[in-house]
Amino acid sequence: MTNTTNTISTTKDAALPLRGARILIAGAASLVGSHTADLLLEAGVGEVLLLDNFAFGTLDAIAHLQDNPRVKIVRADLMRLPDLLAATEGVDGVLHLAAYMTLGFAQTPWQAVDVNVRGAQNMLEACRVNKVKKVVFASSNAVYGYGTGIQGALEEGGPFHSTGAPPAAILYGASKIMGEQLCRQFYQKHQLDYVVLRYSTVYGERQHYRAANSLYIMQTYDRVRAGEPPVLPGDGTDTKHFVHVSDVARANLAAFESGATDVAVNVSGPEPVTTGELVRLVLEFCKSDLKPEIRPDPPGTVRLTSGGAFHIPHDLAGRLIGWQPTVRMREGVNRLLAWREAQEAR
Amino acid sequence: MTNTTNTISTTKDAALPLRGARILIAGAASLVGSHTADLLLEAGVGEVLLLDNFAFGTLDAIAHLQDNPRVKIVRADLMRLPDLLAATEGVDGVLHLAAYMTLGFAQTPWQAVDVNVRGAQNMLEACRVNKVKKVVFASSNAVYGYGTGIQGALEEGGPFHSTGAPPAAILYGASKIMGEQLCRQFYQKHQLDYVVLRYSTVYGERQHYRAANSLYIMQTYDRVRAGEPPVLPGDGTDTKHFVHVSDVARANLAAFESGATDVAVNVSGPEPVTTGELVRLVLEFCKSDLKPEIRPDPPGTVRLTSGGAFHIPHDLAGRLIGWQPTVRMREGVNRLLAWREAQEAR
Repeated sequence: MTNTTNTISTTKDAALPLRGARILIAGAASLVGSHTADLLLEAGVGEVLLLDNFAFGTLDAIAHLQDNPRVKIVRADLMRLPDLLAATEGVDGVLHLAAYMTLGFAQTPWQAVDVNVRGAQNMLEACRVNKVKKVVFASSNAVYGYGTGIQGALEEGGPFHSTGAPPAAILYGASKIMGEQLCRQFYQKHQLDYVVLRYSTVYGERQHYRAANSLYIMQTYDRVRAGEPPVLPGDGTDTKHFVHVSDVARANLAAFESGATDVAVNVSGPEPVTTGELVRLVLEFCKSDLKPEIRPDPPGTVRLTSGGAFHIPHDLAGRLIGWQPTVRMREGVNRLLAWREAQEAR
Repeated sequence: MTNTTNTISTTKDAALPLRGARILIAGAASLVGSHTADLLLEAGVGEVLLLDNFAFGTLDAIAHLQDNPRVKIVRADLMRLPDLLAATEGVDGVLHLAAYMTLGFAQTPWQAVDVNVRGAQNMLEACRVNKVKKVVFASSNAVYGYGTGIQGALEEGGPFHSTGAPPAAILYGASKIMGEQLCRQFYQKHQLDYVVLRYSTVYGERQHYRAANSLYIMQTYDRVRAGEPPVLPGDGTDTKHFVHVSDVARANLAAFESGATDVAVNVSGPEPVTTGELVRLVLEFCKSDLKPEIRPDPPGTVRLTSGGAFHIPHDLAGRLIGWQPTVRMREGVNRLLAWREAQEAR
């Protein structure tokens, strides 16, 4: 076997032109799903199939799409292969988003194992049977792991760290590694083209409350609005590397339309941010002069992000799928919180 | 959550004395299973339950045990939780060996995902329900990964490497990481004591033909006996780190009897060996003067072991479960091949 990860096949153009194409999004009733559906419709796809079991996703996230004649909502479960065989008939491309994250592996580990490992395998099998032309698989920077080993640039060839991390985080990361490798296995055995996108922490309008990292922006905003000082864990120098959902949606489209196949690339925002800077952006948006409360970690605390500096380069995505992020943190935070205010005003 | 991996809990003694105990071995019709059962019976256990679905294991490996009044053979499948709930009733300790390896993830990835992830989760659930006192979970040095990153000492805190490795190997390694973390999760949520043993490549009498690395000794022997020169992949400096099955069986018993819980330790032989040295040991056993044939790798070949030097320290096992290996490669190869000759003579 040869290792072709992270190199473009020079003999094959795996581009899937989106105009007129039928694209299925698995896990569509979600932040990334709804934004990507919007962008696919703008790009002139023939049909978008929004597949979800609505275990988490609500119709809210995709309510604005349900009367669009080019949109079809499919209620189906990744654990039922017959559902997926039916749903992928005549489909050109599949964006596989459906997954449990760290909180899911902590609270409902049986479902999380089902969806992240077997669910991915089922979807790939359905794509093979129905000759889907290309799969875009949503992975995560969780494939680089957590804990004390996370330092410096997290590049695509890097290893998976787990020392000092809680079991649920390691389970999530390992499940994403398995999902990626199942894609590679289907490519090698069945020539199913795919691009793996390793999203960093996604945030933006229609934000939900399930992801530990992006939740922090919302929690900070909620506290400031309630007149309480925002909380800085540790000393406020924790690094986070977010990516705005509109950039993620653009990356999904680029992955379909580029000639790349059998590659895995990071999808991260323009630059990392410290929790201190993030809190300042929220305070600025709220025009608040509250002072952040520094809350030292209790002994034995394990945080998902290290205290040290890390960043997630996205140069490879530039080279392989012609994508780079555009929304910087200030703009992204302002867009998210403006959406949140508009929601509250209703 | 605090990280207690690789540290002995000072407030708790999780020793399970084996005399009179009921021990269940999952995946018992196997190299490690049969040797461990022998040793448990010598150690005076009350009963050994040999659980297997006989998908791979044959009764051959445990045929010598089936008339022992302290042995019970249980035909059950890890994917059926009710089987495991019934099998673990009144059991004191479980040795969980059942797993697919890299070849299994290449050839039968659906079964491999089932057994290595959900199968482990099912067994832990059965142990929780039936208040099993201690689980010994067979992991692997596959949790350090494969490919070009594998260099130097593979210590217990090290990351998982995958650059340059085939999908099946990465899937296997990630599945073992998940198995280990499911143990940790059951410990943290349900106080189920466990020890993870990361076996290096196991070899020895009753060797089967399913494991890529240990198979090499047998293949070399087969060629020499047929009068063909043994094949040295690459230049013969590939490192492998074996451990003899009798040492693994002793480690399993030590893991039950030691006070350690919530730890993961390497179980490796006294020292690594190069393929060149290994071939010399086989030629010596066979009293052959055949010259090894050096077979350079075809371009693009990915081998599971790196060309570089690595070794797998087992000091932590010494400190935490009081175990160290005793069988050096020359003795182990001689024991394996003497057994093989006796088999052939029948």
